[in-house]
Amino acid sequence: MSVVEGGGGPGVTTPRGFEAAGVAAGLKSTGRADIAVVVNRGPLKVGAAVFTGNRAKANPILWSQQAIEDGVVEAIVLNSGGANCFTGAFGFQTTHHTAEKAAELLGVSSGDVLVCSTGLIGTGDEVFRAKVLDGTERAIAQLSDQGGPAAAEAIMTTDSVAKTSACHRDGWQIGAMAKGAGMLAPGLATMLVVITTDAVLTAQQADAHLRAATRVSFDRLDSDGCMSTNDQVTLMVSGASGVAPDADAFRSALIDVCTDLAVKLQADAEGASHSIDVQVIRADTEDDAVEVGRAVARNNLFKAAIFGNDPNWGRVLAAIGTTSARFDPYAVDVEMNGVRVCSDGGPDRPREEVDLSPAQTHVLIDLKVGEASAIIYTNDLTHDYVHENSAYAS
Amino acid sequence: MSVVEGGGGPGVTTPRGFEAAGVAAGLKSTGRADIAVVVNRGPLKVGAAVFTGNRAKANPILWSQQAIEDGVVEAIVLNSGGANCFTGAFGFQTTHHTAEKAAELLGVSSGDVLVCSTGLIGTGDEVFRAKVLDGTERAIAQLSDQGGPAAAEAIMTTDSVAKTSACHRDGWQIGAMAKGAGMLAPGLATMLVVITTDAVLTAQQADAHLRAATRVSFDRLDSDGCMSTNDQVTLMVSGASGVAPDADAFRSALIDVCTDLAVKLQADAEGASHSIDVQVIRADTEDDAVEVGRAVARNNLFKAAIFGNDPNWGRVLAAIGTTSARFDPYAVDVEMNGVRVCSDGGPDRPREEVDLSPAQTHVLIDLKVGEASAIIYTNDLTHDYVHENSAYAS
Repeated sequence: MSVVEGGGGPGVTTPRGFEAAGVAAGLKSTGRADIAVVVNRGPLKVGAAVFTGNRAKANPILWSQQAIEDGVVEAIVLNSGGANCFTGAFGFQTTHHTAEKAAELLGVSSGDVLVCSTGLIGTGDEVFRAKVLDGTERAIAQLSDQGGPAAAEAIMTTDSVAKTSACHRDGWQIGAMAKGAGMLAPGLATMLVVITTDAVLTAQQADAHLRAATRVSFDRLDSDGCMSTNDQVTLMVSGASGVAPDADAFRSALIDVCTDLAVKLQADAEGASHSIDVQVIRADTEDDAVEVGRAVARNNLFKAAIFGNDPNWGRVLAAIGTTSARFDPYAVDVEMNGVRVCSDGGPDRPREEVDLSPAQTHVLIDLKVGEASAIIYTNDLTHDYVHENSAYAS
Repeated sequence: MSVVEGGGGPGVTTPRGFEAAGVAAGLKSTGRADIAVVVNRGPLKVGAAVFTGNRAKANPILWSQQAIEDGVVEAIVLNSGGANCFTGAFGFQTTHHTAEKAAELLGVSSGDVLVCSTGLIGTGDEVFRAKVLDGTERAIAQLSDQGGPAAAEAIMTTDSVAKTSACHRDGWQIGAMAKGAGMLAPGLATMLVVITTDAVLTAQQADAHLRAATRVSFDRLDSDGCMSTNDQVTLMVSGASGVAPDADAFRSALIDVCTDLAVKLQADAEGASHSIDVQVIRADTEDDAVEVGRAVARNNLFKAAIFGNDPNWGRVLAAIGTTSARFDPYAVDVEMNGVRVCSDGGPDRPREEVDLSPAQTHVLIDLKVGEASAIIYTNDLTHDYVHENSAYAS
């Protein structure tokens, strides 16, 4: 992997052809930046996006789903500090007005402006609208090809660090920013992600690459099993490099960037004290591997045990037993941080040999029935998770 | 409902024809009672049972599933202090030996003796076996028609109170005991339940009534979304009343007793500070109502919000949106403790009007598409839940 950039890097303004900005519009009570804009200066204006699988979709999702249909994206406006979800027709109009405001200032069609929102569900009144429109105008006035870091900061909610990533290849580049700290589950998570590239791609290629990359990265991040109403991952293509990349090379680079960001989201999940990689090997199918990994990743008893540094492999097997995957409970092996605590569905090494004190935790489940595998990225269940999420609205 | 008995009542020895006992065999480090036996003195020896849906089943489940096939049950032996799950062939032999020991002492066939175990997965070594066999012998020596309370105490694990229930009808009675405090989820939960009746029923009738009753009671208890490897609900029929009850009357009474116990399990769930009844009304089908209720009941963000007395209805709608139930997100109403905080998928009454300080919490979800309904019984996600389950094995 040639991901070269951590948090605070240029992110979306890494590739040529993009400008970005982030400003404070007063949506966050802290006064921090809360409106980001990313603009594609071309020459291509290609876009692709994937959206939350939740049937209860926020207004910006409803808007962006329509706007992306033609595969053309000129700009994207993102706000933190309010989800504009379950805010009725007024909320949808706010999203529409936001796209129109940006389009007018940029001299493009409003149908080519995507909108994303994140924050508390039910927030989206007149005050919210006025602040979003004002912030959009001010952000556009500050657009710059150095604006990536400011944009990445403006989309943060409970994130403790801004998250960016970038990848440089022969003549073309990919840049990205992400936010997401709670409600991290596939399909997608409470994540907003914007990815930019100066490679030359058609809308169809962009869409196929994006779906392939999110399927094995963001869709395998399952911090707390909760699916958001507002998630959106957008790929914007400027083509400014003039280079049409090899398809495999581009897809591989995009997967690298998406995985890098998914792991950063995992590491910064609300209240978590362990990043847990649940790796399932020798499954009959990849779907089986994902189902097993996800069942373990969503098991509160397992997650609480890891928080307590308890290598409770019985809870891993109990979770696997709830799936429809092909396996024999009395053939499964389980390793925790390299120690095989369970072999053939029975006790193996003593639990005392497992050291769960490192934040990075690896659980390996060997189903012994096939050749497919998958990793699900999750977190432990902690006092801080409960605390942060019981106090979120206050 | 004519349930007349709370915790500490005679429970399984309420109906005529049953004897029970509970003794301490040293399986629990506390020295408390940990082996229970319930014996059916007839004249009928009818039995029915439902088992965990987990594909990773403990040894006593594997045994009891075979033993129940002929619909004849003479006795049941239950132990706490060790799940005898993932303990290999040795563990299965322990269960087998337990049934044989009880059968020999009672002068019945070992194939008519059921066995249940509960406690830590992976526990079931030579010491465990010796204690279980010794305890079984001593419990059988102490059998009495007053032994219900002692048996109910002996099956407790992290339960804070013994749980019994009983129901008296015209000439016949139902009695029951239950344990279960963590890993409470359907299909079933970490629950062991023994129900006795002196009504006259065939094995077929007993099975049909038991399945119908558990479907709307224990199967709708979903404290933490985690499914156990050891759950078993057993109905034993002595026929000692000589009365063949009206089928509807018996089923109704059995549902009452099962619901009473399910609510007691909910109220005593590990670490919970709120018992939350998620009631879904006007669903298209009962399956839809259950799916929606369960999705909300399993949403950690919603559960943490209730712990924080936060009527965060956005999380309710976000959870509903993950289901495949028939509904329109912009038609749904949500009430919390009688206050309609959301109507037609938008904000209604101010959240400040909702008082979530009582332990008993009612969430009403009106889908407005049909006439079906269901209640899922769940709990909040608390610091104490995380604490108890991170320290369980230590």
